Amino acid sequence: MNIRQIIIRKRSGQELDNKEIEFFVRGFTAGGIPDYAASSFLMAVYFRGMTEKETFFLTRCMMNSGEIYDLGRFGRRCVDKHSTGGVGDKVSLVCGPIVASLGVKVPMICGRGLGYTGGTVDKLESIPGFCARLTHRRFMKGLEKIGLVFSSQTGRIAPADKKIYALRDVTGTVENISLITSSIMSKKLATGAPGIVFDVKCGRGAFMKKKKEAGDLALWLVKVCRKFGRKATVLITDMDQPLGTTVGNSLEVIESVECLKGHAAPDLLDVSLRVSAEMLVLSGACRDLVAARQAARRQIENGEALRKLGEVITFQGGDTAVISEGFRGWKKARHISDIRAEKTGFIQDIDAGLIGQLACELGAGRNRLEDRIDPSAGLIFFCKKGNRVQKGETIARAFTDRRDIAEICGRLKRAVLIAEKRPVLPAMILKRITS
Amino acid sequence: MNIRQIIIRKRSGQELDNKEIEFFVRGFTAGGIPDYAASSFLMAVYFRGMTEKETFFLTRCMMNSGEIYDLGRFGRRCVDKHSTGGVGDKVSLVCGPIVASLGVKVPMICGRGLGYTGGTVDKLESIPGFCARLTHRRFMKGLEKIGLVFSSQTGRIAPADKKIYALRDVTGTVENISLITSSIMSKKLATGAPGIVFDVKCGRGAFMKKKKEAGDLALWLVKVCRKFGRKATVLITDMDQPLGTTVGNSLEVIESVECLKGHAAPDLLDVSLRVSAEMLVLSGACRDLVAARQAARRQIENGEALRKLGEVITFQGGDTAVISEGFRGWKKARHISDIRAEKTGFIQDIDAGLIGQLACELGAGRNRLEDRIDPSAGLIFFCKKGNRVQKGETIARAFTDRRDIAEICGRLKRAVLIAEKRPVLPAMILKRITS
Repeated sequence: MNIRQIIIRKRSGQELDNKEIEFFVRGFTAGGIPDYAASSFLMAVYFRGMTEKETFFLTRCMMNSGEIYDLGRFGRRCVDKHSTGGVGDKVSLVCGPIVASLGVKVPMICGRGLGYTGGTVDKLESIPGFCARLTHRRFMKGLEKIGLVFSSQTGRIAPADKKIYALRDVTGTVENISLITSSIMSKKLATGAPGIVFDVKCGRGAFMKKKKEAGDLALWLVKVCRKFGRKATVLITDMDQPLGTTVGNSLEVIESVECLKGHAAPDLLDVSLRVSAEMLVLSGACRDLVAARQAARRQIENGEALRKLGEVITFQGGDTAVISEGFRGWKKARHISDIRAEKTGFIQDIDAGLIGQLACELGAGRNRLEDRIDPSAGLIFFCKKGNRVQKGETIARAFTDRRDIAEICGRLKRAVLIAEKRPVLPAMILKRITS
Repeated sequence: MNIRQIIIRKRSGQELDNKEIEFFVRGFTAGGIPDYAASSFLMAVYFRGMTEKETFFLTRCMMNSGEIYDLGRFGRRCVDKHSTGGVGDKVSLVCGPIVASLGVKVPMICGRGLGYTGGTVDKLESIPGFCARLTHRRFMKGLEKIGLVFSSQTGRIAPADKKIYALRDVTGTVENISLITSSIMSKKLATGAPGIVFDVKCGRGAFMKKKKEAGDLALWLVKVCRKFGRKATVLITDMDQPLGTTVGNSLEVIESVECLKGHAAPDLLDVSLRVSAEMLVLSGACRDLVAARQAARRQIENGEALRKLGEVITFQGGDTAVISEGFRGWKKARHISDIRAEKTGFIQDIDAGLIGQLACELGAGRNRLEDRIDPSAGLIFFCKKGNRVQKGETIARAFTDRRDIAEICGRLKRAVLIAEKRPVLPAMILKRITS
């Protein structure tokens, strides 16, 4: 068996067997298969796709390339949550504490942001002292004691995925459904929660721009979960305007805290309660979605969810001043600039794709994994789609250390469309699929 | 401009412009673009193809990556010949001397063999002392003095092609018409003959298995020649059974010498005369193909072509004993084994693909460019398709240093089909296309 033959077989549209896929994953992870062969193989997969069988094999090999966490001791009351990433998506920071405060174990393996979609790890790391790199021991201890951990994908969990993803990112081979599915699932399966709720974002500010693509990914995720004996629910949610009112790392942590204090933008609250409810039902903590949503809302109102967030921040070394004092003591952005409405009317549209890109330019995101993020950079919106604004009113505020803030803010105006007619607001939940 | 964007543009089926293609060729040749990005790009090209414009740009960039030979001083009476490679294809060794002996300059840039198709350079280098690595000065001097040179592609001619081809070979991205065309043409254009005759081999022993593929390549070659102001004629010739009676490097040199002495297998003679005639007409030395074919045949009969071969061997440092004494003094294969007919009947078929592969295993070819070739290894056939053989008669003889000769000869039998009915012999020239 050699990689050239495997490339040619895939290139010609043949189905690879378990051994060939294992040969690729092991060889590439160990360094025996060079990058140039792997990238050519991945481009062939991009064009030819993978069958269900191939995707299962690939997922399993990638999962088995590193440590496997056994969460059996927590039984069924244990649920993970995964978002495919969106602009302003801080749902994990809200749902995790809500669900854990109801006695369900929530082992969250979170990613770093790439491109304009933020990563939960980056957001949390804007809290002074917060450490997301947990050893297996700390991970398990956190789950036992707090019921919630936010852990980054260490080099020990699915290292094959880490290496393959880094190569895909620089070789234009990210956008393939089987590669996306195996990348997500290998990590999720390795860290072992028996149930997983997926929030597949769909729209201009998401990886999946179209409902069809998002729907396909949802089906694949459910299929792979079923194959590996996990329960899964997928919500496809709107990501056409930024979620909530902030984009940027420390800004989003503050917004999450505010949300748990009861001051939430309606869209963020809606998605967070819905995802929390799915997590509660999937883990058996609540019997149906209506009861679960009420229970979730109650945890915000009675302060239990906020308390849980404080506990997990403390457990992971972070400074909880963020909960009582907000911004104070954090790094401040050097330049702040307001964006004002150029006319009176209704906000028709806020283009999440463009906003994500501009937030990235402000310093809130990275184009390469090795790029540094500026935790203070980002945007606050004072209005959402459907709000009425007056000419000259501040609609958003930009924070950055970059000098070209004026130029970026100029382009920001183009992302916000104002018109006379009141727009129709979209439903946040576009589809639900469950195993 | 960055390579990732270029990959993604090609992947999505967009047409690249001159600058993007130049960015790729220059960047990859100079080392700024890593192998893994280049191979992913090449796989995207494999699937998406390239437009005429893109192929022209690519060819031009690759041509301009190294030295450009100016053959202007030789005027129109100067013609190159190129074969896409086949099993037993020694046509260049026959045509070159024929055409040069009629006063036409023949600047042959020859390749090394890869896979089961032999390379003219490898064949000639089995002559003791023969050197195919000519400097520009020696190349020009040979053309002036002898009218014929056999030169390998040095690192100075189209180095971009050399580097790109090496990567394509190991990443399953060889089989794309634009990449093939640009690879062939960048070298041919850099060495500057005003006319080129292409022998596109077609059949199981060739790179192009099907007439459709061969026809497509022929059209592309003619198009690119026209674009760059060169005259071109393409013959698509049969490569379903090995050409002539030998496969292997020194064996094929001997067969070429025998052919120029007037002892040729009919198929080899037919193709050689036809290609020679095209070269003579394209360079204006003969007014039509009938006259040209007669002229070519005369150069064999009067010994002029053989004398020219002797001259070029001497000029390039080789021992001309091969012409008078054949094998004597050359490295001999350690093991020799005869393959006998298992029944009486007509040779229905000799599978050139399988023969090429087995000759490779005997040591006559290489799987990687860095593999060493055994010049003495190969096969002699005592019969061709359509010949009648008696049970037990020797149909072929294998030469090798490898110990597993018996096993290889066992499989060799499967390549030769004997049956009662006399088979229909195919035409050697399948198609002719001219600019």
